[in-house]
Amino acid sequence: MTTTVGAPTTFDLGPAKALSCRECGHQIPLAPEFACAECFGPLEVAYSFGQVRRADIEAGPRSIWRYRGLLPVPSDVDSHPNTQPGLTRLVRADRLAAALGLRSLWVKDDTGNPTHSFKDRVVAVALAAARQLGFKVLACPSTGNLANATAAAAARAGWESVVLIPSSLEKAKILTTAVYDGALIAVDGNYDDVNRLATELAAEHEDWAFVNVNVRPYYAEGSKTLAYEIAEQLGWRLPEQVVVPIASGAQLTKVDKGFRELGELDLVEATPYRVFGAQATGCSPVSAAYKAGHDVVQPVRPDTIARSLAIGAPADGPYVLDVVRRTNGAIEDVTDEEVVEGIRLLARTEGIFTETAGGVTVATAKKLVETGKLDPDAETVLLITGDGLKTLDAIENHIGPRATVPPSAAAVHEALGL
Amino acid sequence: MTTTVGAPTTFDLGPAKALSCRECGHQIPLAPEFACAECFGPLEVAYSFGQVRRADIEAGPRSIWRYRGLLPVPSDVDSHPNTQPGLTRLVRADRLAAALGLRSLWVKDDTGNPTHSFKDRVVAVALAAARQLGFKVLACPSTGNLANATAAAAARAGWESVVLIPSSLEKAKILTTAVYDGALIAVDGNYDDVNRLATELAAEHEDWAFVNVNVRPYYAEGSKTLAYEIAEQLGWRLPEQVVVPIASGAQLTKVDKGFRELGELDLVEATPYRVFGAQATGCSPVSAAYKAGHDVVQPVRPDTIARSLAIGAPADGPYVLDVVRRTNGAIEDVTDEEVVEGIRLLARTEGIFTETAGGVTVATAKKLVETGKLDPDAETVLLITGDGLKTLDAIENHIGPRATVPPSAAAVHEALGL
Ligand SMILES: Cc1ncc(COP(=O)(O)O)c(C=O)c1O
Ligand SMILES: Cc1ncc(COP(=O)(O)O)c(C=O)c1O
Ligand SMILES: [Zn+2]
Ligand SMILES: [Zn+2]
Repeated sequence: MTTTVGAPTTFDLGPAKALSCRECGHQIPLAPEFACAECFGPLEVAYSFGQVRRADIEAGPRSIWRYRGLLPVPSDVDSHPNTQPGLTRLVRADRLAAALGLRSLWVKDDTGNPTHSFKDRVVAVALAAARQLGFKVLACPSTGNLANATAAAAARAGWESVVLIPSSLEKAKILTTAVYDGALIAVDGNYDDVNRLATELAAEHEDWAFVNVNVRPYYAEGSKTLAYEIAEQLGWRLPEQVVVPIASGAQLTKVDKGFRELGELDLVEATPYRVFGAQATGCSPVSAAYKAGHDVVQPVRPDTIARSLAIGAPADGPYVLDVVRRTNGAIEDVTDEEVVEGIRLLARTEGIFTETAGGVTVATAKKLVETGKLDPDAETVLLITGDGLKTLDAIENHIGPRATVPPSAAAVHEALGL
Repeated sequence: MTTTVGAPTTFDLGPAKALSCRECGHQIPLAPEFACAECFGPLEVAYSFGQVRRADIEAGPRSIWRYRGLLPVPSDVDSHPNTQPGLTRLVRADRLAAALGLRSLWVKDDTGNPTHSFKDRVVAVALAAARQLGFKVLACPSTGNLANATAAAAARAGWESVVLIPSSLEKAKILTTAVYDGALIAVDGNYDDVNRLATELAAEHEDWAFVNVNVRPYYAEGSKTLAYEIAEQLGWRLPEQVVVPIASGAQLTKVDKGFRELGELDLVEATPYRVFGAQATGCSPVSAAYKAGHDVVQPVRPDTIARSLAIGAPADGPYVLDVVRRTNGAIEDVTDEEVVEGIRLLARTEGIFTETAGGVTVATAKKLVETGKLDPDAETVLLITGDGLKTLDAIENHIGPRATVPPSAAAVHEALGL
């Protein structure tokens, strides 16, 4: 990844034109970099958009690549093997709305993605950008969804992958990554150890793209597609309220970025929208900072069943606070019991089975209505970002068959009270 | 469900106009019936199609309801809550093609459906038809995928559900159905006992729609949408070869029916296609009948890890034999070891993690190429109908991390042989 001085490489990443520091604004040309050389702040992709029209998007592929004109990927992105995530269902949720006391509610159901979480979006963009930037190996540290998405995308592309996980991970999560046959390495240590190791390896291997480390600026842009899809699926308009789960906080800030871009490009009318954040109380550093009126986020040690959201030191925390305050939203957190009830409520009312992260979103929405923060009359979208099949342990002690009976109609009738 | 003599009810089921006996051809008006009163043969939906145009389909909903003009559902079907399955990815599979020795290969990835199997298609059509036919409760006997799909669809619609499962079912499958909070009843007995009980209950409760029993003629039509989508996603043409897993055999016969209808309606050119069937050797009654040149299928006692295909007495067996022979296809079966290898091959080459049924399809395709039955130069589609997350037990003793290491870069390098 070294560039000869005096002969800067230019990378074709479509409308992406530079990397810009979120702290000091310093810009550098597109490169495989993630931290500002001036202030160590996080770099973000800056664009120079051409003419982007609704009709062109609508005529595009049935995946996130229909928005390639808004992403850091080349225009021929869809001709390279990748997982084609996105264009997941936006489900009208009248029964959940009634249960929550909302008038108009939608669920963005990202369980339909290739490996059943929104991570397929960010990994697909990371892979597409990494290919342009000259990387050869797709890698990540992860405890679950990201491991699945990275290993699957690399397999599909015919790339080597290196996925680092804590060795204590549950067997199911190991299997669902190992099956793609990349280099899955179990590390004796906790997630922080694994993360540190990834940063060290990224520095040593210039052709390894750790999607959420050294390719993070590109990777994170993938979450903008959630905003684009919601707007397109609503008939090219913005919702009034959106509830987003927070781990690192990247997704929430990118949903906001996506909505803003659509307005700026006249793809939608720039109507006001409010962004709400959802955390599990057992790992709620951003919620705590929001409630305390702070601008910075105090790290915590996570202790919650919502493991996919359990980032104690969220990189995008301050930017989340900015977005939520600017859009007049709020952040709330919910207990593990409420998370389970959120999972069950969504399943019972809408037939959608989400993982703990989705339980956090539903339960937080409920609490935000009850506390008067979500306007019950405003059109609302909940982001359901992961699949219940991956966190069965969270509900296993709470549900089961109504009854176990001998094989007779009379016994069934009795069990049903008929 | 009784109809007053002399005052026949007419049901609005769109283009569906009658039920027709597959054995003797006897026709009756649309009704909540499934067996011929003349000969006890299975009833099938007969249509009188109006003008169906590509443009109207393409402008329709992003779900199977875009094909409502070809299904036994009313034209306003999409305005009633249902699971909106379908329009799953058709993935160009060049790496799998190379591994199998095929020139042009596609994978229809039905793991993207709401409960991650093709059963969402059939259940959604069953629910839509059942609503028109006056049923009030959605029910089924099942050991897995169908239970998930039925419980989820009922929840979404706000219907009661009654799902009967063998009490010996694995905990994961119980949880993934129980979460929707319908009446899940565990029955002490095997699947045959559960099935018999369902038939008995269907006779007693005239407002219970057992999707795969008394609503079966409507339900089964849902599988036609696999054929419609493949043709549309190929740019409105038929593939030359398709490989379909067989349990009851319904899906295979309906894929054929779908392709034929598209040709008859001039939605595609009626080019020849060959239909291939896939079974696990441990439950291969249709494959055995095919190889022996028989017209009828001898029931077997299933013994295979491919439990979703483990129907020992497949109702549509003879019709499957007809389709395969008429289209110049073939049927093959594979061992449980080959099933596991099939799952792993698809994951490794295309990043798609399928359940055992998909492993059967991939492994069978491999065998059909090796034995010269699949033409390696003809464009081929494999139906991947279910999700690997549901059958982790099948692979758990075969895969795992490459290595477990201490948290140091040197240890990772050593594990990777670098
Ligand atoms: C299912 C799910 N939802 C939401 C998130 C939050 O994403 P972010 O880190 O961008 O805040 C994650 C992160 O891992 C996740 O796995
Ligand atoms: C995943 C999967 N694939 C295929 C089938 C076969 O369907 P059919 O009974 O229509 O042959 C089933 C049936 O249960 C299934 O669960
Ligand atoms: Zn800076
Ligand atoms: Zn008959």
